[in-house]
Amino acid sequence: MTVLISDPEVVATLDAPTTVDAMRRALLAAYDGRLVAPPRAAAPLGGGRMVLTAGHLVGQWYGYRSYDTFGHPGTEQVVVLHDGGTGAVRAVAVGEELGSRRTGGLGGVAVDALARPDAATLGVIGSGGQAWTQVWATAAVRALREVTVYSRSAARRTAFAARVHAELGIPARAVDTARAAVRDRDVVVLATTSTTPVLAVADLAPGTHVNAVGFKQRDRAEFGPDLLDAAAVLVTDSPAQAGSYDPPMLAAEAPYASRLRDLGAVLAGAAPGRTDADQLSVFCSVGLAGTEVFLLDHLVRTLAPAVSG
Amino acid sequence: MTVLISDPEVVATLDAPTTVDAMRRALLAAYDGRLVAPPRAAAPLGGGRMVLTAGHLVGQWYGYRSYDTFGHPGTEQVVVLHDGGTGAVRAVAVGEELGSRRTGGLGGVAVDALARPDAATLGVIGSGGQAWTQVWATAAVRALREVTVYSRSAARRTAFAARVHAELGIPARAVDTARAAVRDRDVVVLATTSTTPVLAVADLAPGTHVNAVGFKQRDRAEFGPDLLDAAAVLVTDSPAQAGSYDPPMLAAEAPYASRLRDLGAVLAGAAPGRTDADQLSVFCSVGLAGTEVFLLDHLVRTLAPAVSG
Repeated sequence: MTVLISDPEVVATLDAPTTVDAMRRALLAAYDGRLVAPPRAAAPLGGGRMVLTAGHLVGQWYGYRSYDTFGHPGTEQVVVLHDGGTGAVRAVAVGEELGSRRTGGLGGVAVDALARPDAATLGVIGSGGQAWTQVWATAAVRALREVTVYSRSAARRTAFAARVHAELGIPARAVDTARAAVRDRDVVVLATTSTTPVLAVADLAPGTHVNAVGFKQRDRAEFGPDLLDAAAVLVTDSPAQAGSYDPPMLAAEAPYASRLRDLGAVLAGAAPGRTDADQLSVFCSVGLAGTEVFLLDHLVRTLAPAVSG
Repeated sequence: MTVLISDPEVVATLDAPTTVDAMRRALLAAYDGRLVAPPRAAAPLGGGRMVLTAGHLVGQWYGYRSYDTFGHPGTEQVVVLHDGGTGAVRAVAVGEELGSRRTGGLGGVAVDALARPDAATLGVIGSGGQAWTQVWATAAVRALREVTVYSRSAARRTAFAARVHAELGIPARAVDTARAAVRDRDVVVLATTSTTPVLAVADLAPGTHVNAVGFKQRDRAEFGPDLLDAAAVLVTDSPAQAGSYDPPMLAAEAPYASRLRDLGAVLAGAAPGRTDADQLSVFCSVGLAGTEVFLLDHLVRTLAPAVSG
């Protein structure tokens, strides 16, 4: 029988440590070939596209996430989990939380693998849902003592800082400029909808780790090539997906592509991560396909006793 | 709030006349451009593919059906219906009935549009789920006085005939050869998994209408070119999808492609259907995309008072 999962069940079940741990296992599974995660498929529908990102954990399950590009205010994503043995649909999740949390979780894995072990300050540019889950997941992997946030709307950045303090118990300040948000921070999150750079690499202290979540394509990115030029460690969660962007992803083109490492390889010890406290590390988040299904499988296993009881 | 629909609700709500009527409206909507239905999109998953067929009824809804090609015995299809205004997911259907019934419904529309008005005998080759819904829908558009069925398994064809009699109240006989099933029949359904011809056109009486539901590609079809050579009326439910098969669909290649008509155009009166009682007409069913979502929308509207009450 199929279980229908909505946002409240996701919120109640997938806390940040659980989510980060699941995403770490997903990245390792993709690296060693157990998680098959091809680039996305899309169907044009006139005014928008229906997009499918699929995954297959060999021997366990297969499924996909769907979303659309119509831009409707209340649009919802769907995640479908098939049993790998019978093909039956074990669960369908409808909403936004599963997708947001998995992107946050991937960011948390990147911070854990790449930021300095003693990183304690976090600067955020952006105040939307993606910015939030990055902070939520980062707080699960580092003992943060302060979060600073900038976004264009004073009201939104103030509300964001208040939420960080209220929900995560971390001192947080809204600041007036992007530069003030990221200066002297151990970890920086870029999670804007900007298609032009929102920071200059000169604003960053040596040894900073950056999670880049927003646009990151050639001539359409929230950061400039200067960030990639300065990065000693350049990582993504899916080199295959990074290579399939159109227009191309900045970090997947020369001269950066040859330096772009797979986060799964770093986790497996097959590629180096940070080797020096003063290195700048940059994580280009693309959202490894199949990870929403991975999370849904974990969620359904967690719920199973309650569902059958 | 999302409604989860499973096979029992589909069976209880979508009877044959309702389904055929909905599919007629869908074909007309696709013909006049209100239903946008692009060819399918697929993601390779190692050992199988996840396939998406999407549709958008402009101003009303958008969504898709997903299925996979792993070949698991208990595999289920998923149909997702988004509200066209908000993007919210109104319903998700999991199971087999919605997909089977829509294919049957499209076949029923074809019989209604193309078979002789006085057609009363039906010959079926095949005894699976697809064969069943073709008979089920045909019985809604013509007063049938006998059904004959052939399939390789004597047990299955006997059970099929018994089901036709029990559920549809139509006299039905299982016969020993394909030729005996289709000889002197007004309507013939081909719904096998055969990749080689199961009948010869010489077996058919003048004036027969044929619904071809199984394989219909070059060198991989349940009928041979002789059927298309003899057809005075050659129709499909989606010329665009017919043209996107790989290997190519027989009826979408020369010399047949120029004669292949859109069932929606026939319904709209923009293309001729049968013009003579002795013509052989052939419907090549491809499964117009978006029609499962069209049916789910209809089903949810039907259920709505019960759901909210």
